[in-house]
Amino acid sequence: MNTQDLYNKYTLAMQKIADVENTISVLGWDNQVNLPTKGARFRAQQIATLSGIYHELFIDKKLGALLQKLNEVNGLADKPNKNVTISLHDYQRKIKLDKAFVIRRSEIISEAYQAWGAARKANDFNVFKDALKKVVNIKREEAELLGYEEHPYDSLIDNFEPGGRTKVIAKLFKEVRVQLMDLVRQIRQQPQVDDSFLKKFYPKDKQWDYSLTILKKLGYDFEAGRQDLTVHPFCTHFSPEDVRVTTRVDEHNFTDMLMCSIHECGHALYEQGLSSEQYGLPLGSSISKSIHESQAILQENNLGRSYDFWRTNFPTIKDIFSEQLEGVELDTFYKAFNKVSPTLNRTKSDELHFHFHIIIRFELEKGLIEGSLEVDDLDQVWNAKYKEYLGLEVPDDFNGILQDIHWAKGYFGYFPTYSLGSFYAAQFFHQANKDIPNLKELIASGNNQPLLKWLRSNIHQHGRYYTGEELCKKVTGETLNIDYFMQYAKDKFKVIYGIKD
Amino acid sequence: MNTQDLYNKYTLAMQKIADVENTISVLGWDNQVNLPTKGARFRAQQIATLSGIYHELFIDKKLGALLQKLNEVNGLADKPNKNVTISLHDYQRKIKLDKAFVIRRSEIISEAYQAWGAARKANDFNVFKDALKKVVNIKREEAELLGYEEHPYDSLIDNFEPGGRTKVIAKLFKEVRVQLMDLVRQIRQQPQVDDSFLKKFYPKDKQWDYSLTILKKLGYDFEAGRQDLTVHPFCTHFSPEDVRVTTRVDEHNFTDMLMCSIHECGHALYEQGLSSEQYGLPLGSSISKSIHESQAILQENNLGRSYDFWRTNFPTIKDIFSEQLEGVELDTFYKAFNKVSPTLNRTKSDELHFHFHIIIRFELEKGLIEGSLEVDDLDQVWNAKYKEYLGLEVPDDFNGILQDIHWAKGYFGYFPTYSLGSFYAAQFFHQANKDIPNLKELIASGNNQPLLKWLRSNIHQHGRYYTGEELCKKVTGETLNIDYFMQYAKDKFKVIYGIKD
Repeated sequence: MNTQDLYNKYTLAMQKIADVENTISVLGWDNQVNLPTKGARFRAQQIATLSGIYHELFIDKKLGALLQKLNEVNGLADKPNKNVTISLHDYQRKIKLDKAFVIRRSEIISEAYQAWGAARKANDFNVFKDALKKVVNIKREEAELLGYEEHPYDSLIDNFEPGGRTKVIAKLFKEVRVQLMDLVRQIRQQPQVDDSFLKKFYPKDKQWDYSLTILKKLGYDFEAGRQDLTVHPFCTHFSPEDVRVTTRVDEHNFTDMLMCSIHECGHALYEQGLSSEQYGLPLGSSISKSIHESQAILQENNLGRSYDFWRTNFPTIKDIFSEQLEGVELDTFYKAFNKVSPTLNRTKSDELHFHFHIIIRFELEKGLIEGSLEVDDLDQVWNAKYKEYLGLEVPDDFNGILQDIHWAKGYFGYFPTYSLGSFYAAQFFHQANKDIPNLKELIASGNNQPLLKWLRSNIHQHGRYYTGEELCKKVTGETLNIDYFMQYAKDKFKVIYGIKD
Repeated sequence: MNTQDLYNKYTLAMQKIADVENTISVLGWDNQVNLPTKGARFRAQQIATLSGIYHELFIDKKLGALLQKLNEVNGLADKPNKNVTISLHDYQRKIKLDKAFVIRRSEIISEAYQAWGAARKANDFNVFKDALKKVVNIKREEAELLGYEEHPYDSLIDNFEPGGRTKVIAKLFKEVRVQLMDLVRQIRQQPQVDDSFLKKFYPKDKQWDYSLTILKKLGYDFEAGRQDLTVHPFCTHFSPEDVRVTTRVDEHNFTDMLMCSIHECGHALYEQGLSSEQYGLPLGSSISKSIHESQAILQENNLGRSYDFWRTNFPTIKDIFSEQLEGVELDTFYKAFNKVSPTLNRTKSDELHFHFHIIIRFELEKGLIEGSLEVDDLDQVWNAKYKEYLGLEVPDDFNGILQDIHWAKGYFGYFPTYSLGSFYAAQFFHQANKDIPNLKELIASGNNQPLLKWLRSNIHQHGRYYTGEELCKKVTGETLNIDYFMQYAKDKFKVIYGIKD
């Protein structure tokens, strides 16, 4: 076989794996959107079976040998060569966990998920403790199996953020925490914003229709996707040509559905912007959770919560919701939309306090994985940090340490990517404004195409050609720098809250 | 390994196969219900990949050896033994077709499907001819590979109707044709029925809501399924606990959605009635296409188009559609609902003429497979038979020979099961009336539970324990006998059309 034949064989093998993976995603989507109650049992079994097949295909020794061979031959062009290098890296990482370990881990997680549900019902962290200890232990074992240079947590972060390092993130988070606490303190001293009109009754159908309008405006391609209603909004993809979003509706909270839709739309624009020609290959896949999140946050916060965005869109919604918004002007609306106020719940947070939620989780995960913190003390530390960073008393476990599904699912290393995504978003958006000097005016005129074009050409189209760090450097000239986020936050919220420097 | 361990291993292997098969069904359902236009390309690839995996799992030599071993050991109880016997038979049949043949067949069918689409667009059978010739050839080859005793067509019928034989069906169909032509001739001499009020405007939402009401009344479990809208109605299942139906709506044809919903509901009741404990095994699967169809037809025609059924349901729909049904009485409604009039299109046929459509297709398929008929002459023969059996001139290929997808998909042997299903339905329904003496009154009072219970206990629960023929004999005391259908047809339509003996 010549090099091209080998590469074609590799492509077919990877596409087969992608077909199975995307099929699992279809089952998952259907679970959330359509599943009749009794269907859950066999659906879970079907997902488990497909996941097993996926894993078998991925760790197939023949695939490993093919990747090795392709990695050694000459004559591959730059992009195919990149695909092979990344796939080989993925493969070598994946085979570090043998089948027995993977089964054991999935049993522990399955048990933990049950226990977490029971603990939430009982509103008692104690019910979850033993199962969580097992999760922590297996994740520590996983970290050892996967290997790391500096910190065991690094190897878990790597599952979501290839190359992400505990030390670097800890440093960033500490800086952000200090600066954000100062900003939030200043905000607290100012007159507070009234957002009561956003809690009036906003009928479901009208909210739904408007969310579709906004998705179209942002460039979401409805011929390559659809929006549905679910309890928890998400974005999923079966190919770049079928990328689906879901949203939820609260008739007494106008911003909720809209912001969920825009957030998931940001994820979807990334997936719709990936290359169909590279389907199943690294260059047809997204880089990392944080870069994915950056695309969601950029649309949601940097664009969707901006004054410019609402200059063009406010008149429309005032038409649609004339009763609810009677007497409300653009300025009042914009301020209410961006109200800063601490919440116990991460998913209901404003865009500043959000990072305290993440930093707390990061600090706890780091402690658990490195062994400086015990599960037995977790709720106490959680509550203490909520008091220290957000100034909130946690009334009970349900609204405290039991609020997230992540630990029950074994997703250690996932949380930091939310904040990193937000910081990347600010840095990318700053650069987009430099590259498109009249971007603010374009947005204010309702033209979102130039921004999308910029994202497509600078970020989406590359797939995994660059790592997150490399991409950031290529696009903005430097690696992740939280000054962009802090500057964005200060510029925006000092105006909203009338804070003078 | 002891016998029980071997049996457990077999069960797991079969459930894995079922998981993959049911996942393919989810992809298929999603295709029809949700797929955005651009999603079709990769979805087709995903289905092909999963189908390949399904086939590999099924023809796995290890599974074959396990089945052989289980077939030879003693100590299996009756039901497990039956499962093993049937699975071994399925396996032995499946491995008769090697991978090269299966790939070649799927390429030919893929090409034929394209050509059929193009031919329909061009309204010209000539565009389809060459591709269809290839399909006929590969199906003849398949018949030889699978083997048969009497007639090559037998082995293709066997794909849909295990044990079905050309000779037997040909004899049945001839009898039915002669008797039905006589009945239809008598009907044609009587004053015709006016069904114009059924073509008034019946709003979509109200039709939809009413179809849900009827499904519930028939016993469809919405916790184990759902109804959606599609272009072509169908029923699909992912387990007995997730059985979904779809329907279509025509706002100027009241009976269309309703009868589609009831028909698919009949299929669904069968699937929901299969044993969850036997998931993935023969005893947890339906017997054959004709028995499946019998369950749909029994609900649609024997129940859903009966006078008794409308005695209880007519007042409700007259409330819902008071304007459209103003001045219409139950008798008029019932007659209109059962109007007999020949159509060119099989799917738009009344319940009598329907069988001419099927008989024509059966005769043509038989001719093509045994080699007594050439594809080149097919349209001429089609048109001549429509003239002879239905008294209709076929104006063009689109409304004639190109109307069905079956041949383009390689489904030779499928058509006869439609009529067989109808005949089985009449025989089963006759027996149900014998076993439940007051069944007519129960139906007329709106109580469909006793009938469903009868179907569950006599038919659904057994899975593939009996063949269609065995089941028929067990339930009704004799094998398929078209007298029941003919008696049902004569009793019903002679009353409707006022025909005196």
